[in-house]
Amino acid sequence: MIKWTDRRAQRVETPRLSTRGERQSTTKVDIAGFAPELLTYLGQAAYFQLGMFENIARAISIAPELDAKEALSAAAGRALAKHQGLVAEIRRRGGEPSEVMAPFAPGLDAFRHQTAGADWNELLLSCYLAGGLLDDFFIRLSDGLPGDVGPRVAHLLGQDAGTDVLITHLRAAIRSDAALGSHLALWGRRLVGDTLLVARSALPMETHTSDQSRIEPVFTEIIAAHTRRMDGLGLTA
Amino acid sequence: MIKWTDRRAQRVETPRLSTRGERQSTTKVDIAGFAPELLTYLGQAAYFQLGMFENIARAISIAPELDAKEALSAAAGRALAKHQGLVAEIRRRGGEPSEVMAPFAPGLDAFRHQTAGADWNELLLSCYLAGGLLDDFFIRLSDGLPGDVGPRVAHLLGQDAGTDVLITHLRAAIRSDAALGSHLALWGRRLVGDTLLVARSALPMETHTSDQSRIEPVFTEIIAAHTRRMDGLGLTA
Repeated sequence: MIKWTDRRAQRVETPRLSTRGERQSTTKVDIAGFAPELLTYLGQAAYFQLGMFENIARAISIAPELDAKEALSAAAGRALAKHQGLVAEIRRRGGEPSEVMAPFAPGLDAFRHQTAGADWNELLLSCYLAGGLLDDFFIRLSDGLPGDVGPRVAHLLGQDAGTDVLITHLRAAIRSDAALGSHLALWGRRLVGDTLLVARSALPMETHTSDQSRIEPVFTEIIAAHTRRMDGLGLTA
Repeated sequence: MIKWTDRRAQRVETPRLSTRGERQSTTKVDIAGFAPELLTYLGQAAYFQLGMFENIARAISIAPELDAKEALSAAAGRALAKHQGLVAEIRRRGGEPSEVMAPFAPGLDAFRHQTAGADWNELLLSCYLAGGLLDDFFIRLSDGLPGDVGPRVAHLLGQDAGTDVLITHLRAAIRSDAALGSHLALWGRRLVGDTLLVARSALPMETHTSDQSRIEPVFTEIIAAHTRRMDGLGLTA
């Protein structure tokens, strides 16, 4: 178990990290020093959203019920809109999206396979938890981006992900099957480790040891939000 | 081989069936008598677009190159927008989308599996040909819908499907490999048969034998458009 998961002991009732306004009420951390180069940030975030879209699309394909399939199509559209918004930012800066995303493809493809899950419930939980955590993280990291791109990206990523359908389904499944709840709690704990590694990899390589303690409150915040997602499903984080 | 494929002998240079304006210059057929019940039409068209979306999403997952993956994401967004537009029409009439689509799920799921193809090139060709043909067909059938829903649906389905990326890739692959061209021509001829059966199934059951000859010009038109798509790729229809 990696150490960040233990931060949940410090959990406080911070608001959900979905808008910049809300975030200002949480622990202040000067993220500017951790900001990666702009195209690097956009490339990684854009490829992550494309992977989220692929995962949701796979969930649509294996959905056991037509109403879940239909409801998931809205979530797929949201992930696609985030991807396309980030791609538009890359193009606006003269970048070629596939080139800018390419360095992140091997790592994020591996992450997606690791977290794809063995069945419908595991896949849904991955979409909800990994998507939620990394949306939060990329929003937080956008504070350090130059010019007006940060607020624009934060607004894009902070939009409703259309994941209510995931919550509704998972909550019902967990309530009716205690063994499933215990299994998914384990899956959620594994997911958070893999997902935080992706978040760490988005920080510039040259982040010094002294910076590590300054970045920790950001991780504390996003892990608190993750723990609330687990709690909301009735899972022990 | 089913008989409609032989209609290509009657092929004329009709414009592409992408807008209502253009269609008015083609053979006039009173389609009103063939119009299915509105929710039936919307349910089948909506579920077909969801399946198109799933096929394109699968193409994204197996794309050999990142630029193709990226370009296909736009096509996935278009199919999803068509699906969501049709679902909005169902809701506007008080229908529950999953209930309205349900009767078509078994048939269209089977169609999607039959036409999914064994590899990337076959899947791309399916997306392009089956999507193009059934968009044309549902646009044509929308003429018979009551009220103002027909023009609205025709506009929705007539929008650019974002399939230029499919054409670009397929054309390049076919030009550089004669054996692939011959293989895909065969696949295209199989696709058109399966796809026309779906189109036939969208006509009301009670369509009489005497009506069959009246509906034939519609099939002649959509097969002519299909043949132009094959020609455009360098494939013999």
